[in-house]
Amino acid sequence: MVLWSKRRMQRPELPRLRPRVAPTELAKVDFTELVPDAVPFLGQAAYIQLEFFESLAKSVATAPTLPSKEGLSRAAGAALRKHHALIAEIRRFGVEPDDVMAPFAPAADRFRQASAGADWYELLLGIHVTSGMLDDYFSRLAEGLPADLAARVRAILAEEGSAAVLHDELRTAVEGSPALSDRLALWGRSLVGDTLLIARSALRASDSADRGAEVEPVFTELIAAHTRRMDALGLTA
Amino acid sequence: MVLWSKRRMQRPELPRLRPRVAPTELAKVDFTELVPDAVPFLGQAAYIQLEFFESLAKSVATAPTLPSKEGLSRAAGAALRKHHALIAEIRRFGVEPDDVMAPFAPAADRFRQASAGADWYELLLGIHVTSGMLDDYFSRLAEGLPADLAARVRAILAEEGSAAVLHDELRTAVEGSPALSDRLALWGRSLVGDTLLIARSALRASDSADRGAEVEPVFTELIAAHTRRMDALGLTA
Repeated sequence: MVLWSKRRMQRPELPRLRPRVAPTELAKVDFTELVPDAVPFLGQAAYIQLEFFESLAKSVATAPTLPSKEGLSRAAGAALRKHHALIAEIRRFGVEPDDVMAPFAPAADRFRQASAGADWYELLLGIHVTSGMLDDYFSRLAEGLPADLAARVRAILAEEGSAAVLHDELRTAVEGSPALSDRLALWGRSLVGDTLLIARSALRASDSADRGAEVEPVFTELIAAHTRRMDALGLTA
Repeated sequence: MVLWSKRRMQRPELPRLRPRVAPTELAKVDFTELVPDAVPFLGQAAYIQLEFFESLAKSVATAPTLPSKEGLSRAAGAALRKHHALIAEIRRFGVEPDDVMAPFAPAADRFRQASAGADWYELLLGIHVTSGMLDDYFSRLAEGLPADLAARVRAILAEEGSAAVLHDELRTAVEGSPALSDRLALWGRSLVGDTLLIARSALRASDSADRGAEVEPVFTELIAAHTRRMDALGLTA
């Protein structure tokens, strides 16, 4: 919390997003051209699911009602299953998951702290925005893996997670409070930059060439999906 | 933390346990004589698993190493499965789990805070001691439920949970540090009283008669099992 308040102060400039881009306007990217290195890809994806689990578990512990606890705890369970299933994939390569995940831990831990927010609603939106973008992203990136591994990883990531429960909790809260709406709109916008950095690091970890230009349309897609997610909550992205 | 430090100060007198009672000396209690009311029984048992989940999730988030995170996160997943499976049993009665769990929430929340301890090791021992005693207890108490429900509940609670991973983490830590040993021995002893109160409230919730005398041997059994658990860690109970 303290850390985040400090970071927030240091960054008055929020990333400015293009207002509303219809999905059809976007060039679809063929992710099979981007071939991630399987092991580091799995390591980062697994560790990020652990971060989602930790954030969701925190949202359970601080939830104001029992029905909220139930919905969020199911989402936490899903993140945990994804984490363990990805760890099992790493073990199939005969390597220790801890060694593979460790290099990603510091940045991912900072990312989780930075997206934890100042209260329960900011925590929920933090998970909604970051997992919404990154689950999509890792699932798309997995297309470049060997076919059978790609299919398994995409099946793991496809398990319904936190999107519906977070949407419902946030939608209900926002409808009753314009002040909360304004605050969460701002908060959601401020999360995009850090999330894109994590996404970008996933490419860098597995590919030494500069694929900046190649992946730019992907980030545009991620941002467009983010905008639709915020729209659905009645929040300006 | 603050709350607990305060409580700790207020209770300098730790419960004094009989030193070492061999299990064979104990009269076995026939739990089928104690017939718990199914719905409140399930409500309290379900909510307590949620507390174990929250404590285990906290131990994951604060774990010093990735292997510790992995072991503890599996235990957290098991507690979550037990919680959700017990909730499903409540729904079979056509009642809302939230309504059934709500009366137990305040005492269970206080109990979790009181057993969270001052650091990661105390948190781990807090879960080990309380879940060790209460999983046994609820499983025994379930013998008094209608046969098919009893079998399902005992199967739910029988899933391997946190005992092995907590034992291993604590054993390793204790072996390297006599100072930690002394502190944890004291801490483990101080947890017994609160845990027995929770156990006692499980009977009271479902049975208006005073079964104090009848269940006394049960508590003696729970304490004996606690002593064996602490012994296995090399800690004086």
